[in-house]
Amino acid sequence: MDRRSFIKKAGLAGASAAALATPAIAQGNQTWRMVTTWPKNFPGLGVGAQRLADRITAASGGRLTIQVYAAGELVPPLQSLDAVIDGSAEMSHGAAYYWQNKSAGLSFFTGVPFGMTSREMAAWVRYMGGQEIWDEIYDQFGVQGFLSGDTGTQAGGWFRNELTGLDSVKGLRFRTPGLGGRVWEKLGATVTNMAAGEIFQALQSGTLDAAEFVGPYNDLALGFYQVAKNYYFPSFVEPGLATELVVNKAKYQELPSDLQAIVKDICQAEYDQVASDFYANDPRALKTLVDEHGVTVRQFPDDIIEAGAKAATEILSELRDSGDALTKKTTESFIEALNIVRTRTEGTDGAFVKAREAYFKI
Amino acid sequence: MDRRSFIKKAGLAGASAAALATPAIAQGNQTWRMVTTWPKNFPGLGVGAQRLADRITAASGGRLTIQVYAAGELVPPLQSLDAVIDGSAEMSHGAAYYWQNKSAGLSFFTGVPFGMTSREMAAWVRYMGGQEIWDEIYDQFGVQGFLSGDTGTQAGGWFRNELTGLDSVKGLRFRTPGLGGRVWEKLGATVTNMAAGEIFQALQSGTLDAAEFVGPYNDLALGFYQVAKNYYFPSFVEPGLATELVVNKAKYQELPSDLQAIVKDICQAEYDQVASDFYANDPRALKTLVDEHGVTVRQFPDDIIEAGAKAATEILSELRDSGDALTKKTTESFIEALNIVRTRTEGTDGAFVKAREAYFKI
Repeated sequence: MDRRSFIKKAGLAGASAAALATPAIAQGNQTWRMVTTWPKNFPGLGVGAQRLADRITAASGGRLTIQVYAAGELVPPLQSLDAVIDGSAEMSHGAAYYWQNKSAGLSFFTGVPFGMTSREMAAWVRYMGGQEIWDEIYDQFGVQGFLSGDTGTQAGGWFRNELTGLDSVKGLRFRTPGLGGRVWEKLGATVTNMAAGEIFQALQSGTLDAAEFVGPYNDLALGFYQVAKNYYFPSFVEPGLATELVVNKAKYQELPSDLQAIVKDICQAEYDQVASDFYANDPRALKTLVDEHGVTVRQFPDDIIEAGAKAATEILSELRDSGDALTKKTTESFIEALNIVRTRTEGTDGAFVKAREAYFKI
Repeated sequence: MDRRSFIKKAGLAGASAAALATPAIAQGNQTWRMVTTWPKNFPGLGVGAQRLADRITAASGGRLTIQVYAAGELVPPLQSLDAVIDGSAEMSHGAAYYWQNKSAGLSFFTGVPFGMTSREMAAWVRYMGGQEIWDEIYDQFGVQGFLSGDTGTQAGGWFRNELTGLDSVKGLRFRTPGLGGRVWEKLGATVTNMAAGEIFQALQSGTLDAAEFVGPYNDLALGFYQVAKNYYFPSFVEPGLATELVVNKAKYQELPSDLQAIVKDICQAEYDQVASDFYANDPRALKTLVDEHGVTVRQFPDDIIEAGAKAATEILSELRDSGDALTKKTTESFIEALNIVRTRTEGTDGAFVKAREAYFKI
């Protein structure tokens, strides 16, 4: 008998049942449902959710077996968090910014325009107060969030025509969602959102002039290269996309402490694994796009980047002052941490990358 | 009775005992010894070894309890690997390049001049054949290695006088060990090695003109700022220092599969945790050095970096051709992977960092 059916049969609510738990019961096998916001086998992210589940199952010796439901299999993708809140799933694998309607500050735990790289995000969350603020936000909903992956800096998007400067952004019909879309709007683009499956057709028919999705590893399969040959880097509006595992907090706290540790530790292992996957496979996919599909890799003109930085500053300031005290606190913590960690990234790691790029050929 | 004493009493060798293992025995509690190459409480690295041990103990519910011995407590630091090989410890936490006398290719699993960043290293090891080659090297000694941390790009060193260009390196008495030291030697420096505890005195007395150790987080406590005010960045000879956990392979394979998974998963979690620690705390320590101790942060002159890149190319080529087939294979795999992943780091993540540095102030 698993722990959940024991609790059910005994007619006990979670908290009081936990108090009655004995080691024998705590060692019983349980199966948890993980809903996700990703399509099945979606490179990097959907694959990562499944691997995270399998690793928890393996490290727990089957005591905590995780059953994964891809987007739409149990609930629609954008109801994943609600499913965890209402208990119809124990876990959700997705991205915190999908829930910004619940708390605008959640965007910071996925990534914001001109914000943190994946290393900086982990430093903030683990050592500079980020996790504590995230917990404060999610405590309102009875859930617990953990970083569970990161794409690294994404691609800037597919453009039918070359960008000659900021002027060429005016009126550009560009598919780019979220806060990044708001940056491009301030630059003069006509921003639209549409599901991934609709982008190709819209680019082909000329309804769209440009579209941004993830990066080479994910974009290759969608065939955008057939209708838009200019692939721009980097996405200054998505310097990283951190994924999250969200767990129903009461159920998490009922787990014996070793299983709690396993869930948390494997999320952190996956934060590295997912990034490694993107770092290894994005450049391989980009090579295919260039060598086999005639894609031209380009960097954004400087005046676009400069205007984008100004727009991002405005958007983060608006977020901070949007009236919600917790969002203000999140924004301030994020900016304070960013201004510390960026000195390392820019002055040390970034300086090395620049030096290697300029002088080291082997 | 723990598993090890069972095996001992039963008079069985490891491999055959594993075949006889039953679930009841596999669930017995064991205590393993972890020797390390780090001083106790050494920021980032010694602390990381202890935390890794504690996390394995916690996630295994005490079934695998890890007892940590700092450098010299059980064996001298540079005998840590031998202790794991001969079975006097089950684990060692250190850095693979300490064992380059056993196989020169091991340097690549710590880091080499103008080599990989921490993200690139993980991509190579996890997705581009690195782990398989590392296993091939360590199989010769009956041990298994896992990445267990990374410092990120290190500081370039403390210099009594400002460097005006490559000419100012000639004859410079510089403490910088390993392959990095060989790069500086090619640049004209007089390279010496000495233990960390001797550096301060040598800088103060003028026996040394410069010294390189780790980075702000570790260097602050050693007080170099009192006698050498010029702190140069980045260390192009140490773009990262990956730490390793090495486990006696026979003992690892005797573990039940859930404990094997826990050891491996927590090493990966720590790869992220250690880097997060350095990313959060290096810039804080650097701020203290600048604001409270009058340190001047400088970047190396371009001609030094350019000459350093040329010297690094020569050293990696020499390594490749040093006669050992496995070292050649390791070097070739490393260079092939580096030339793929660097296109992402330089063209996407690095390009973002440059853009943010140039235009984003908040």
